[in-house]
Amino acid sequence: MTSRAVVLLSGGLDSATAGAMARAEGREIHALSFSYGQRHTLELRMAAVNARRLEAAEHLILELDPEPFRGSSLTGCGSVPRGGSTHGIPSTYVPARNTVFLAMALGIAETRGAGEIFIGVNSVDYSGYPDCRPAYIHAFQELASLATKAAVEGAPTVIRAPLLLMSKAEIVRRGLELGVDYGSTISCYHPDDRGRSCGSCDACLLRLEAFRANGIKDPAPYV
Amino acid sequence: MTSRAVVLLSGGLDSATAGAMARAEGREIHALSFSYGQRHTLELRMAAVNARRLEAAEHLILELDPEPFRGSSLTGCGSVPRGGSTHGIPSTYVPARNTVFLAMALGIAETRGAGEIFIGVNSVDYSGYPDCRPAYIHAFQELASLATKAAVEGAPTVIRAPLLLMSKAEIVRRGLELGVDYGSTISCYHPDDRGRSCGSCDACLLRLEAFRANGIKDPAPYV
Repeated sequence: MTSRAVVLLSGGLDSATAGAMARAEGREIHALSFSYGQRHTLELRMAAVNARRLEAAEHLILELDPEPFRGSSLTGCGSVPRGGSTHGIPSTYVPARNTVFLAMALGIAETRGAGEIFIGVNSVDYSGYPDCRPAYIHAFQELASLATKAAVEGAPTVIRAPLLLMSKAEIVRRGLELGVDYGSTISCYHPDDRGRSCGSCDACLLRLEAFRANGIKDPAPYV
Repeated sequence: MTSRAVVLLSGGLDSATAGAMARAEGREIHALSFSYGQRHTLELRMAAVNARRLEAAEHLILELDPEPFRGSSLTGCGSVPRGGSTHGIPSTYVPARNTVFLAMALGIAETRGAGEIFIGVNSVDYSGYPDCRPAYIHAFQELASLATKAAVEGAPTVIRAPLLLMSKAEIVRRGLELGVDYGSTISCYHPDDRGRSCGSCDACLLRLEAFRANGIKDPAPYV
């Protein structure tokens, strides 16, 4: 029997890679995305493409009230940083976002009988985000091991964060090995209205550098 | 300066009491409720009444996609137990519910600058629910102490579960001392279309016993 995994898909490079790793392990994929007032819904279109490539059994897009996420430049408040490195917690930090996403994924995993949740968090390049750190993922695993009926019955949902300690270049290398179509992922904070990346925001700079390190041209469209 | 607290209000007896305890400590209340496909929306009307009595600065009712909660008798699947004690995990268990509620509350707390979240969970009478146990609340506190910008900056949101180890009779006694209007709370799984409790489901039996132990008639309407 194929074991099931919930895969959080954002439409970005990291989650597409984490999904491909789940698929390479033979999991039946239950893709999960959220609509919560992002500036651009392009991410959700990309997530849908990624889900199809993973031959997902389903792709759930859950509406989330954006109220808990206010105060981030990604949900409409303030300006998204353009280029240069950031210090401390980036303005693109979204309050409690991964906690809400993982909590919802935990419910979906339980209702689907899925033993694992794959999340593409990465602590190396974006270490400014508190909810992308190894200690955070470990704490969520502890919580998941107590929170559900499955946990009480001896089979707690396992939180898989396979990219946690990889550099962006290593992530891209692994994804290329697995055949991820990075042309159908979006990392840019400022895509234009044709979905082309700006090439100059923090996310673009990191991504471009990762492809360069692999000696490959990023297949995503840029302005 | 009055410190702020997010109070999870369900419209039930426990959360009304936890809210009154937050108010008695002088907190500015930010009441938070969820609409997620409950069988009866009477709970939300009661929560609104409770929020007004707490002189809440705001009462947020967030819509939640019910998908992660499927499989509970409270969200439309199966029948709600009628009377008698339950063994193991009750059929009214809702997958990952408190985890989702607390995660959303964590985001709201951060956006509101609230230092505490009050939740009316209680491990004594409903010990069958995995996400009402002291170890679960402790694990969520550990998570909250890592998850947010506030945590990184040295002021993690504090999870307050003041009813955790109280019996239902003790909860009612404390609430009566604080002037909680229990006539405006609902515990019943099967209220009739006029909002009257059935008096015979598990929740009603526990509640009636708690009032009896305090020598008081439950002011809520019964059929």
